[in-house]
Amino acid sequence: MQRLLRITAACALTLAVAGPAFAADDLRAKAKEVFEVIPTSVPEIKGNAITPARIELGRKLFFDPRLSRSGLISCNTCHNLGMGGDDNLETSIGHGWQKGPRNAPTVLNAVFNIAQFWDGRAEDLRTQAKGPVQAGVEMASTPERVVATLKSMPEYVADFKAAFRDDPDPVSFDNMAKAIEIYEATLITPDSKFDKWLAGDDASMTKLETAGLSLFLDKGCAACHNGVNIGGNGYYPFGVVEQPGADILPVADKGRFAVTKTATEEYVFRAGPLRNIALTAPYFHSGKVWDLEQAVAVMGSSQLGETLSESDVKAITAFLTTLTGVMPKVEYPILPVSTRETPKPEGM
Amino acid sequence: MQRLLRITAACALTLAVAGPAFAADDLRAKAKEVFEVIPTSVPEIKGNAITPARIELGRKLFFDPRLSRSGLISCNTCHNLGMGGDDNLETSIGHGWQKGPRNAPTVLNAVFNIAQFWDGRAEDLRTQAKGPVQAGVEMASTPERVVATLKSMPEYVADFKAAFRDDPDPVSFDNMAKAIEIYEATLITPDSKFDKWLAGDDASMTKLETAGLSLFLDKGCAACHNGVNIGGNGYYPFGVVEQPGADILPVADKGRFAVTKTATEEYVFRAGPLRNIALTAPYFHSGKVWDLEQAVAVMGSSQLGETLSESDVKAITAFLTTLTGVMPKVEYPILPVSTRETPKPEGM
Repeated sequence: MQRLLRITAACALTLAVAGPAFAADDLRAKAKEVFEVIPTSVPEIKGNAITPARIELGRKLFFDPRLSRSGLISCNTCHNLGMGGDDNLETSIGHGWQKGPRNAPTVLNAVFNIAQFWDGRAEDLRTQAKGPVQAGVEMASTPERVVATLKSMPEYVADFKAAFRDDPDPVSFDNMAKAIEIYEATLITPDSKFDKWLAGDDASMTKLETAGLSLFLDKGCAACHNGVNIGGNGYYPFGVVEQPGADILPVADKGRFAVTKTATEEYVFRAGPLRNIALTAPYFHSGKVWDLEQAVAVMGSSQLGETLSESDVKAITAFLTTLTGVMPKVEYPILPVSTRETPKPEGM
Repeated sequence: MQRLLRITAACALTLAVAGPAFAADDLRAKAKEVFEVIPTSVPEIKGNAITPARIELGRKLFFDPRLSRSGLISCNTCHNLGMGGDDNLETSIGHGWQKGPRNAPTVLNAVFNIAQFWDGRAEDLRTQAKGPVQAGVEMASTPERVVATLKSMPEYVADFKAAFRDDPDPVSFDNMAKAIEIYEATLITPDSKFDKWLAGDDASMTKLETAGLSLFLDKGCAACHNGVNIGGNGYYPFGVVEQPGADILPVADKGRFAVTKTATEEYVFRAGPLRNIALTAPYFHSGKVWDLEQAVAVMGSSQLGETLSESDVKAITAFLTTLTGVMPKVEYPILPVSTRETPKPEGM
């Protein structure tokens, strides 16, 4: 009986790793239950119409460092569209070279997250966009300063009028956030190897990668990392089974507890969305882990209570690299010209 | 006789300001003696072949913040292609939020300057490119760190091989600089109103603008600001006639003297190239003057020994706005992905 079980296990492994088409279909069926192909078009945004004028305005605002007090930092500084939509730093560098409290999440596909920030404190992208602009350790500006800046440039005034036709006061902090939200909603990365595979293209993933997917499902990773973004849609304690050390999970940052003030939400965070994860090291809200394999191993022990074997870690990591999609093509915007009335940079 | 002179002067003014076609042709002939239309194609670079592979590699490098020690600062941070090719700051913010010593010059059309930096200490763009990467107050990196960074990414290694086929050691600090030079040489802004006018299109400049051009020539501005970049091709004392106050000309910065160690070159600087000058406030090497009209007035007193009338200042400023060309279209590059071997950001 023992021997039979071993054989059965060996067969199952063979099927998952190198199996024929029917095994791939089986895995695909399982995968389709928990994941979704990323859309190739921009999703609808509640309370914010997607128009070319808003996309175009949002693109300018996203790249404009004059939204910061210093005149140096734009959205793109920390959410760099050439680097997976984040800054590849442990935590971001902000106004006055201050160190931000948490690792910058990617802006790519962020529109598909349940809410924004590691603790989900912003319900949508337009609420999120207002945060860093005002945060003292990030862009350190104020709504008044931003509006004065935007109103000082006739080109921006015309852009806001075109983007918010029915608004009697189009150049506002709210509309800045709405335009940025619409632009960010266009920043989606379809056509990853995984999406192609999910849609039926067996050849788009290697055996190692599908074996990793199989492990990702079987070991329980997909319990938190699922949906269109393979994460980003629910809140879970970091350390479901075993809390990582303070090097990775700093004691002072209690995560979602700061939002909900609920004791059970201490050290609870939004599950990291794993799309393009291979591009966005370092990992976790603390940004303390630079290596994706190490991050997978940490997740194994902290969330699953299991020391994953080296080969399992490698397979799961191989699967994660298939989540890299096609980056959006971005034309770098020519920004409106400052005028005499534009507030001067401050904070040198 | 007095009366006749007055009439002649009035006629001349009429001709210059509002004159018919023959007056425009006259002004054009004079202008063509001192200025050149900006080329629409990239000029040849001595000792550095222009190839698509070098342009493409240079574009990535220009936007890559990993050339800096912190991982935050790229060439584009201070030479922002959406903001006239500079940062619109008094002096740049660099590593550790340090304040740079001089106002960042525009990278646009820089290939046409006689030499680079305000004091001309770099003979070409590839020599220039090596400066800020290593400057402690700018990107604070080292050639060794840059090469280690570039060699850590297979995509960059392939890009360098493709760009420098005959070089047995293609990934080098020298070749980084050469690729950036080639990319920067593509950043030219043709088809300004002035260029069109110079090429014969009377309608592309207003009467005020041609009046400003006329004054620019007659008052002597064009003695230093001439050639294709309307400046950038010679060295002159700041304060030919009267030194500006220490607020605009700080005593400690002796300009080209630091390069040539020649007493007569104290407070000598390269004449500012005036192309796109309306986009690149604040002005002068100290970046202390934010208003273009004020900058023109300062030049009048310091370089010409003349208090320009308000209407002359306005006309000359109007002419300067015609030097804004068509900005290069820039596709924001998707950068190679860091690996385990990529040096980590430092300096937080």
